[in-house]
Amino acid sequence: MQQRVSLITLGVADVEIAKIFYQRLGWRVGLDVEETVLFQIGGSILALWSRDKLATDSGVIDGGSWGGITLAHNVGSPQEVDRVIDDARAAGARITREPAGTFYGGYAGVFVDPDGHPWEVAHNPGFELGDDGSLKLPPG
Amino acid sequence: MQQRVSLITLGVADVEIAKIFYQRLGWRVGLDVEETVLFQIGGSILALWSRDKLATDSGVIDGGSWGGITLAHNVGSPQEVDRVIDDARAAGARITREPAGTFYGGYAGVFVDPDGHPWEVAHNPGFELGDDGSLKLPPG
Repeated sequence: MQQRVSLITLGVADVEIAKIFYQRLGWRVGLDVEETVLFQIGGSILALWSRDKLATDSGVIDGGSWGGITLAHNVGSPQEVDRVIDDARAAGARITREPAGTFYGGYAGVFVDPDGHPWEVAHNPGFELGDDGSLKLPPG
Repeated sequence: MQQRVSLITLGVADVEIAKIFYQRLGWRVGLDVEETVLFQIGGSILALWSRDKLATDSGVIDGGSWGGITLAHNVGSPQEVDRVIDDARAAGARITREPAGTFYGGYAGVFVDPDGHPWEVAHNPGFELGDDGSLKLPPG
């Protein structure tokens, strides 16, 4: 198995509502077909799809709450963290951690989308953030 | 907010056990520091970290089971789907959907990692899979 994630699917209660939230954050839909909304995110895809269908499709039981996965969106400065968290708040997200300094010397906050999926918005000076948005671990 | 995911953190019960599982799948650790294991996945990073700490860090309540996110790993052929699912089975994954044809004309199966995180392994002829592993939506 190659070392990559092709697609991240977020299970949602209502695909239209979820779509509008991400559009409010400034995202552009790449494909909207059969009650599935797909966004191109660099070399991968983020999909919004019915959470019920996703549970069935994945062969798992849905506990109905958070299930152990958090996404992160890294940015180039603490100021940008504040800005993205404010934008998320304005788009209707709940802020579960207001931006603050982190133990690793960075600065981050967390918002939760309308379907309960958390996003950490982080500035981490230890990781190289490319002009194309790529995030690179330091050479081993 | 730019349209990208920098980092995906999978909350796990035991970071060492989870690390060994992904290593058995052929992944190479990029950074192993402070009970966090990080893998470079293209222009993003996949992290393994304590699920308890991740819940606290994300400001969410942990329901203890699946929470509405499924990852996918796209490959170039149905045969490759079979191979990755077999490799995952050999590495100790539970197969929740044996590989089979899909409604969209592709071929896919699902395995669940030792911490309950599902991965769909899919061949989807409708999406362009680049030599670098990138997955592209058709032009809109």
